[in-house]
Amino acid sequence: MKFSEEKNLSFMQMALDQAQLAQADGEVPIGCLIVDNQTSEIIATGFNEREQTQDAIKHAEIIAIEKACQKVGSWRLEHTSLYVTLEPCPMCAGAIINSRIEEVIFGAYDPKAGSVGSINNLFEEKRYNHHPDFLGGMLADDSASLLQNFFREIRRKK
Amino acid sequence: MKFSEEKNLSFMQMALDQAQLAQADGEVPIGCLIVDNQTSEIIATGFNEREQTQDAIKHAEIIAIEKACQKVGSWRLEHTSLYVTLEPCPMCAGAIINSRIEEVIFGAYDPKAGSVGSINNLFEEKRYNHHPDFLGGMLADDSASLLQNFFREIRRKK
Repeated sequence: MKFSEEKNLSFMQMALDQAQLAQADGEVPIGCLIVDNQTSEIIATGFNEREQTQDAIKHAEIIAIEKACQKVGSWRLEHTSLYVTLEPCPMCAGAIINSRIEEVIFGAYDPKAGSVGSINNLFEEKRYNHHPDFLGGMLADDSASLLQNFFREIRRKK
Repeated sequence: MKFSEEKNLSFMQMALDQAQLAQADGEVPIGCLIVDNQTSEIIATGFNEREQTQDAIKHAEIIAIEKACQKVGSWRLEHTSLYVTLEPCPMCAGAIINSRIEEVIFGAYDPKAGSVGSINNLFEEKRYNHHPDFLGGMLADDSASLLQNFFREIRRKK
């Protein structure tokens, strides 16, 4: 990992803040942050916007990756660390591989679609051409609570 | 498969036309088409735009899926068939799963990143919540020739 645990926790807290912005919009609360790990600069943030946009691609990670590419002026996001509150799905794990992000720190594991340890681990697939470092479970209880409360509230309203 | 072989070949030819549009822009020639398989209407097209946009997400399939979501007004692309000239990478295979596309017909196999048979097969992963039908190898020689000529030309110019 590129940063100290304290620094990682602080960045993951910012990803959780992004997740709360998603929730405020009625979206499943998932948030993401991309940091330049040489300068500690926050390059991009994103939160889940799938329902509002009705666009299947608009997961937190994809939004942050597109913003980061725009900011850096390149599809290669070398020397970056991505923080996300939920384990990436296969689309987002693939987007992380494609954009050459160096490391990924995620919160809660996702038994339904998680592709960095739960269902499979695309980052460990040797035949892909990039293999991000990864660490799962950071502030996982906070991330999972956000998600559980969100779905509980939805069931209550029904 | 939802269409006759003749119809499939005709849609794949249109995906190849999209790939040639990519090539004309100096992009790796990969093209995609999404069709409503109840009405045969072409809902969206896309071609690889990664270099021009310098955006890691801008693969042919992602561009077509985003256009299709916009056209249909929903992130759920049920009753659609996706044609793409090259086997989807993990990001695009994941996007196809996330958008509930019913079936995928692809051209050439991709030993470097193909995730629908070459390296793994994400469409056959039982624990994901959607499993598109798929057929690989359609007009594969045409697709592979386009790619080979493109890379040969690049090496020649260097």
